[in-house]
Amino acid sequence: MKARVVVTLKPGVLDPQGKAIEGALGSLGVKGVASVRQGKVFDVELAAGDPAEARASLEAACQKLLANTVIENYSIDV
Amino acid sequence: MKARVVVTLKPGVLDPQGKAIEGALGSLGVKGVASVRQGKVFDVELAAGDPAEARASLEAACQKLLANTVIENYSIDV
Repeated sequence: MKARVVVTLKPGVLDPQGKAIEGALGSLGVKGVASVRQGKVFDVELAAGDPAEARASLEAACQKLLANTVIENYSIDV
Repeated sequence: MKARVVVTLKPGVLDPQGKAIEGALGSLGVKGVASVRQGKVFDVELAAGDPAEARASLEAACQKLLANTVIENYSIDV
């Protein structure tokens, strides 16, 4: 089955990459962008057919590798 | 208003970062992961209150900066 994990910086954590994108969009003439924060997305194909089992695997993956839980939040969509 | 842009590699485009994550998850003992593909997510705060206008701005942002449309797809959620 397919699942998507989204990892984003916690609110209040500085995001220089997002700031750079904001600046670049302004220079390129894209109007109306107030702020940008960049995160990561992981599209995962799982062997498990059971959503609960899949979610448990992904929870472990996020804790061990995909997210730095000190500064990042993650959300799992199974 | 808030919007989310997700940029993912097109199917068939090699994703070495995703392959590295697959390998690392295997070594860390996370079972049941068949494949991983990594993408980018942008959480954008827009000045525009009108969804159509916001979508047009984000479309321009994706075309000009956020996505490499040769190898990447993007989706906009307003």
